[in-house]
Amino acid sequence: MGWAIAFHGGAGVPVNLPAESRVPREAALQRILQIGVSALAAKCSPLDVVELVVRELENCPHFNAGKGSVLTTNGTVEMDACIMDGNTKRCGAVSGVTTVVNPISLARRVMEKTPHIFLGFDGAEAFAREQGLETADMSHFITSENIERLKLAKEADRVLQDYAQPTKTEDQKETQVPNGVNKCGTVGCVAVDSLGNLAAATSTGGLINKMMGRIGDTPIIGAGTYANKLCAISATGIGETIIRETVARDVAAVIEYKGLSLKEAAAYVIHEVTPKGTAGLVGVSSTGEVAMPFNTPGMFRACATEDGFMEVATWPSE
Amino acid sequence: MGWAIAFHGGAGVPVNLPAESRVPREAALQRILQIGVSALAAKCSPLDVVELVVRELENCPHFNAGKGSVLTTNGTVEMDACIMDGNTKRCGAVSGVTTVVNPISLARRVMEKTPHIFLGFDGAEAFAREQGLETADMSHFITSENIERLKLAKEADRVLQDYAQPTKTEDQKETQVPNGVNKCGTVGCVAVDSLGNLAAATSTGGLINKMMGRIGDTPIIGAGTYANKLCAISATGIGETIIRETVARDVAAVIEYKGLSLKEAAAYVIHEVTPKGTAGLVGVSSTGEVAMPFNTPGMFRACATEDGFMEVATWPSE
Repeated sequence: MGWAIAFHGGAGVPVNLPAESRVPREAALQRILQIGVSALAAKCSPLDVVELVVRELENCPHFNAGKGSVLTTNGTVEMDACIMDGNTKRCGAVSGVTTVVNPISLARRVMEKTPHIFLGFDGAEAFAREQGLETADMSHFITSENIERLKLAKEADRVLQDYAQPTKTEDQKETQVPNGVNKCGTVGCVAVDSLGNLAAATSTGGLINKMMGRIGDTPIIGAGTYANKLCAISATGIGETIIRETVARDVAAVIEYKGLSLKEAAAYVIHEVTPKGTAGLVGVSSTGEVAMPFNTPGMFRACATEDGFMEVATWPSE
Repeated sequence: MGWAIAFHGGAGVPVNLPAESRVPREAALQRILQIGVSALAAKCSPLDVVELVVRELENCPHFNAGKGSVLTTNGTVEMDACIMDGNTKRCGAVSGVTTVVNPISLARRVMEKTPHIFLGFDGAEAFAREQGLETADMSHFITSENIERLKLAKEADRVLQDYAQPTKTEDQKETQVPNGVNKCGTVGCVAVDSLGNLAAATSTGGLINKMMGRIGDTPIIGAGTYANKLCAISATGIGETIIRETVARDVAAVIEYKGLSLKEAAAYVIHEVTPKGTAGLVGVSSTGEVAMPFNTPGMFRACATEDGFMEVATWPSE
């Protein structure tokens, strides 16, 4: 038993991702892993660590969260984020945030400063201002890469429109988007300290070309984000599938009710329950176990444990 | 095995509810039960039946959904709704709806006409207009009873404010609100046909005096609403607790992973997992079993099964 940390930069890595897109992202993961490891080693609480790591990922334009968020069909950003503490099950979430530089910190304020768990859209923005959180105009968040991605997604719009009534087969097809249209670079982090305290955090810009007002899995407790006394989970992928399969809670439920280990439970949910090509997750257990399964071609991910193991990877491990 | 239907008008019934408040609500439940039973007997699909019943409950000013929704701290209505089909796990949800007469039908349109599951606030309103759903200005939804309830809640504001960081104990206290301030009259319906097809639907105005933008458990798949091939669940109570405990999915998970019956699983989640005074639910299983547990003083509820059993009740059954 010891501390452990794992985080992802999205499971939407296409099979043909060129090295020039991969290398800077892996470098960012490596840099941010050091920040997370230092914080855990310095005995920061897992809740502080997951917030810190997700803020770094939000500030990095290479991932689909904060700066770098993908664009709605109107060319705007609408960001979602969620944080949860395992011991108390206290949690906070926001959706439809348009000006807050670090949505994950707004989610934490919802958790700590309101009687509610989940605030959306104008109410979330008003609360951010009331709390004095850093904001920026939309140009801060929008990258030229994402303007291009939206253009490509609009040209391929039939792909999305055809799947208005998703089934398992259609979900699989949905991931066959044009080259380089990375649909789900959501970020998320889970951490456990050497006492077994757990926390999870997730942040995203959502899906490229999404409808105005679309809320994905990230801010939904039990779908994209979940933590209890057994494990902490952050999921990534096609949000609609992750919501329907209550992915994050399901990993915890299989541990709780069937007695499986974290690795077994996470593998079961990603490889047996969730349709191929739709999802991945990172998880840690109260005993310091780490799992990072995905059923997409690749998932940007990093982890470290107190015994000195470290991994930064994109493609399936050997 | 046969068809079954169960629905609720909220678990927030205070212990001192006078008969003049109870009787008209029970009469409405009785009337709407007949509508649901007739539809099921006429072989309408469970998805159609739960939508139909919830529309009736939304149109009835006695319950906290549609007409009769409680008011936010700004004196406005922000309604949430969700619908889910058990066989396919297809689902739709809306939050922060302000002008749509039947939010449950908007949730169904999201399920059937978009590639998404969950739309919130302005995006949900815009989609309602695009779909041509019936809308009304806010005066349609606001009852004089709810203006009075908001006034009472504001006078007792410290109650809410003191619980900015809810714990189990605080959640319990939260329900001890002034006389007649019924905080959670959410409505919801579950149904199963004689072939075992299941569906669930929930609709609410949320909590009295809630912050602008607050999203509760109702539209969260796995929290307030859930259906799969085993059971369909609609929960009611303090949304923040129901989200934290992923109540609806948990009932299904206990059935799926521990092999308990619906009645056992529902009783476990309401009486062992969820803090006393916070929640209730209605559920049906694929074999036509019905469960309607609650841990509050009372829950407006009704059910019927194909073998002729019918119940309309508010207080605990004998």
